[in-house]
Amino acid sequence: MRYSLSIGKIAGISVYLHWTFLILVGWIMMGTLQAGATWIDAMWSLLLLATIFLCITLHEVGHALMARRFGIATRDITLLPIGGLARMEALPEKPREELLVALAGPAVNLVIALILFPFVQRIDPNLAMSSIGAVNFVPALFGVNIWLALFNLIPAFPMDGGRVFRALLAFRTGYVRATRTAASLGQLLAMVFVFAGFALNPFLIFIGLFIFLGAQAEAGMVETRFALRDHTVKDVLMHEVPTLDDTASMRDAACRLLNSQNKNFLVLHEGQPVGILTRQDIITTLRTHGDKALVRDAIDTKLEYLNPGMPLDKAWSKMQSEHKPMMLVMDEGQIKGAVDEESIEELILIHTARSQHN
Amino acid sequence: MRYSLSIGKIAGISVYLHWTFLILVGWIMMGTLQAGATWIDAMWSLLLLATIFLCITLHEVGHALMARRFGIATRDITLLPIGGLARMEALPEKPREELLVALAGPAVNLVIALILFPFVQRIDPNLAMSSIGAVNFVPALFGVNIWLALFNLIPAFPMDGGRVFRALLAFRTGYVRATRTAASLGQLLAMVFVFAGFALNPFLIFIGLFIFLGAQAEAGMVETRFALRDHTVKDVLMHEVPTLDDTASMRDAACRLLNSQNKNFLVLHEGQPVGILTRQDIITTLRTHGDKALVRDAIDTKLEYLNPGMPLDKAWSKMQSEHKPMMLVMDEGQIKGAVDEESIEELILIHTARSQHN
Repeated sequence: MRYSLSIGKIAGISVYLHWTFLILVGWIMMGTLQAGATWIDAMWSLLLLATIFLCITLHEVGHALMARRFGIATRDITLLPIGGLARMEALPEKPREELLVALAGPAVNLVIALILFPFVQRIDPNLAMSSIGAVNFVPALFGVNIWLALFNLIPAFPMDGGRVFRALLAFRTGYVRATRTAASLGQLLAMVFVFAGFALNPFLIFIGLFIFLGAQAEAGMVETRFALRDHTVKDVLMHEVPTLDDTASMRDAACRLLNSQNKNFLVLHEGQPVGILTRQDIITTLRTHGDKALVRDAIDTKLEYLNPGMPLDKAWSKMQSEHKPMMLVMDEGQIKGAVDEESIEELILIHTARSQHN
Repeated sequence: MRYSLSIGKIAGISVYLHWTFLILVGWIMMGTLQAGATWIDAMWSLLLLATIFLCITLHEVGHALMARRFGIATRDITLLPIGGLARMEALPEKPREELLVALAGPAVNLVIALILFPFVQRIDPNLAMSSIGAVNFVPALFGVNIWLALFNLIPAFPMDGGRVFRALLAFRTGYVRATRTAASLGQLLAMVFVFAGFALNPFLIFIGLFIFLGAQAEAGMVETRFALRDHTVKDVLMHEVPTLDDTASMRDAACRLLNSQNKNFLVLHEGQPVGILTRQDIITTLRTHGDKALVRDAIDTKLEYLNPGMPLDKAWSKMQSEHKPMMLVMDEGQIKGAVDEESIEELILIHTARSQHN
């Protein structure tokens, strides 16, 4: 995520702090001092905040380590003011694995609470962030961990509880349908959060919006991935691939861009493919080196090829993870054409339209 | 705006109520009843809410009538929970006209306040929505109108005060630079609103986000329009225009879509242009009529032409207002090619990149 500060690694996974976090820190400091507290009290509040976010990080590490057991790597963990976010390379698709990965997070908070329990004398349910000191620090942390476990188990997909709910559904109805149902419940609960936020705590409004958009995005992604599984690279193969010579200038490339609806070009050197030039490459190079720069200096020369029989979801993942908006398709040593992100998106649109007609 | 309920016309301008308005009504009802009020008290609160939104509508009508004096029509007025929104066909560009249009809104509220003033005995600054009755209805409405006038004059572009600020700057520095400065101040104040919203009232958070995104979008639009003025249709003319026969089927059209990077096709009948078929047309027709539908049944047959010397900002406005993503370019009775929205966007990207290089 952009605008994030790297704060180290846990179990080999980079942890980032998002800049909006500063808002939370400022808000707590202001609230504490406004409530008549001293700077020392405010420091205790910040220490609790830092400890809470350590617990949230451990919660995410719980997910990540369980996912690793099933062969899924975690790219990084980002701490937002409304909680943590672990970005995994893939998502577990076997219901049993998803269930275990989803439960691993809240389990971590329960374990922390169990460890703290012997040191807790009395739990004050009305504890406020502004009244934290040496005496009630541990009880507060205990309460927060219980709350983190329970809150995350609310079945509002894509929260942990929602993933548990999807996994349980998926045992019976299949992954796509389970996701659709879980996402609908998630969006309904998200709206409840937004409503409740007006009355109780503005943070709930943000959490609600986050869940609402997250449910929509993830449900869409699942449908896309499953739609792509029914197709191979051959189904979106573009036979018409515009070419550019590697000795052409950026001025030429910009003209070619404007002269047709093409965005991505195959670059040739003496008739042999040497790279792909995208619209973004042209814009970036015009900005940094101007009109006279040559195409050959702007291209990524590491060409990768797809073959026509490759399942389309694999091709899509490959293009995404290598950040290549267009790839060439090779069959028996011959170039058959190219595939770009847009044709894959078009296939999904066409596929969805056809299935809605039938 | 989608999901809006038409509630009538004022001065020939349609007024819509956005569905999120229901949230506000529900929130006020709940808040009033929770505060121990009776249903009659709650009805008084709703009556005040309705009257406030009538005042907001009149505020927008004030902008619209002033704009009409300068030949600018208003498409419609939409009432959102956070205020009103008048969509004008164009924006006044002469600083004097913008100044008058921006001030006309707050002026309406001041006039309403003046009319109410003789009936106001005592103003209670701590008046809450939940304690409205026959006695304090008029004083509350008086206070709200004063507040509406002052709040809208905060110089947070694109709020009225921000437009006044831009107009005053534009007298000295030109429209684009004035917009950039006003938008920056607007975004800064928007962040203050968001912060203040956490402490005071969650509605301020939404208003802040609205201003932040609005400032960004409108500043971008102004830069685009001014960048396009330096160019004519000739500069983005696509000579390569893919064609489709009007007797082809949707299946053929979908294949053609996938087989190249083209999205918009010129449709021919016996070699003569009869319409444009866009990607969206293909998807929609596949959904409603399936693979066997013919291209000729999916196209809009009302072709409009641009000429090569037309300023590009005029062409862009025309394509936007007639919802045509591609238009043909005609010169001396001959078709020279076509222009689509994407090539205009590409020109802006190229133009910006070049100006950043120099």
